[in-house]
Amino acid sequence: MTMSADQLARAIEHTLLRPEATNEAIDALCDEAIAHGFHGVCINPIHVRRAANRIEAAGSSVKVVTVVGFPLGATLPANKADEARRAMDEGATEIDMVANIGALVALDRPTVRQDIEAVARAVHGGAVSGLLKVILETGVLTDEGKILGCRCSAEGEADFVKTSTGTHAAGGATVQDVALLRKHGSPLGVKAAGGIRTASDALTMIEAGATRIGTSGGVKILRELADVVS
Amino acid sequence: MTMSADQLARAIEHTLLRPEATNEAIDALCDEAIAHGFHGVCINPIHVRRAANRIEAAGSSVKVVTVVGFPLGATLPANKADEARRAMDEGATEIDMVANIGALVALDRPTVRQDIEAVARAVHGGAVSGLLKVILETGVLTDEGKILGCRCSAEGEADFVKTSTGTHAAGGATVQDVALLRKHGSPLGVKAAGGIRTASDALTMIEAGATRIGTSGGVKILRELADVVS
Repeated sequence: MTMSADQLARAIEHTLLRPEATNEAIDALCDEAIAHGFHGVCINPIHVRRAANRIEAAGSSVKVVTVVGFPLGATLPANKADEARRAMDEGATEIDMVANIGALVALDRPTVRQDIEAVARAVHGGAVSGLLKVILETGVLTDEGKILGCRCSAEGEADFVKTSTGTHAAGGATVQDVALLRKHGSPLGVKAAGGIRTASDALTMIEAGATRIGTSGGVKILRELADVVS
Repeated sequence: MTMSADQLARAIEHTLLRPEATNEAIDALCDEAIAHGFHGVCINPIHVRRAANRIEAAGSSVKVVTVVGFPLGATLPANKADEARRAMDEGATEIDMVANIGALVALDRPTVRQDIEAVARAVHGGAVSGLLKVILETGVLTDEGKILGCRCSAEGEADFVKTSTGTHAAGGATVQDVALLRKHGSPLGVKAAGGIRTASDALTMIEAGATRIGTSGGVKILRELADVVS
C-alpha cells in the first residue's frame, strides 16, 4: 500500500500513556502532534486540560483523545461514564474506553452492552458530542469474544472498535484482528493500537482495515515513510 | 524470621486483578481466602459486590479490598474519589489508590497531596470509615519521590503506603523500598506488593517492615511455610 506521510499522519493518534509522564513530556507530545499534523494526542485524563489549552493556544485542530477505565476496563459503568463526562469537560473530544474484558471472555452480552451504553450516553449526550472507541483487548479474547465486542459496540452506539490497550502481556494489534474488527464492526471505525512501531506496521494495519493508528512511534514512522518516498 | 502460617495468612491480601478474570475466578479466590484465613481479597471494582456477598454469606470476616485509579493513577482526583465511594457502597472496606505518579516523579507536592486528600475524604467520610492505602509505584521513583509520597500519604490521612501496582515494567516491591516506606511512612502501615511469590519473599518483606502483603501466590506461600515448619 502506498500512502503519503501527510495522509498517514492524519490517521495517527500520538500516544503517551505511561503513568510517570510529566507535564513537560505531555507538552512535547502536543507540540510534535501539531508539527507533524497528527490526528490527535492520546493521553491520560489528568493531562487533558493542559493538552487542550496548549493545542488551542497554537490554533491547531489536533484532537485530544483520552482513555477511560484504562487499561483494565474493570471499573463500574457509572464510574467509566463519570470519567468520560469529566474528560470532555476538560477538553477531550474522543474517548477510548476499555470494555469489561472479563465479561467478553465469559461472552456475557448484557454486561458488555450495559457498560458500553453507559459511556456512550456520556460521550454523545452532552452539549458537544464526542467520539467513543471501545477497546476490546483482542489478545485475550476468542474470535467469538471479539465478534461479541464488535456487535455490542455497534448496538451500544460507539463510533470505533479498537484492538488493544498496548499494556497487556497477551500482545497488541494483529493484522488478523484488525481485519476481523473491520468485518464485524462495520460501519464503525477501527483503531489499531499496541505494538505498532514501524511505517510497515502502520501501513499493514491500514491495508487490513484500520482507520486510525494508535502509536507512540508516530514521529519515527513518518520519518521512515519520508525516507522510502524520497 | 519465624512466623506461623496462620500469622502470615492474616497479613496476606489474596489478589486477582487480571482484567480477564471471570466471576468464577473471583468466587474461587474468595473461597480460598476464607479457607486459608487470609486478611482479605484484593480485586477490581466490578467484582466487589459479588465478593462481598459471597464472603458475607459464608459468615467470614475476610475483607474486600479494591483498587482505585489502577494501575496508572492518571485519572482525576474527583474520579478517584467517586470510584472509592462507589466501591465502598458495593461492599469494599479497604481502598488501594494509585497516587499521581507523574506528579511524584516531578516532586509536585501540592498535586500529590490534593489527589490523596480527595480520596481520603471519600474513604473516611462516609457512614462506615474504610482504610486507604496509597500506591507509590516505587520502581519509577527516586528516594526523594518515595519520601514525598510517604509524607503526602501521612498528611493526607491515608492509613497505609504501598510499594507497587505489580503491573509496571520497572518492577515490584524491594526490601530496600519497604524499609524506606517503614521509616518515612510511620505511623502508617506498609503494604508490600508486586513480585512476592515465595514464603521467603513474604517473610523478608515483613522483616523489613511490611504489615501487609499483596500477592496472588498466597496459597502456594502458605503451603511452602507449612512444609518448612513440619
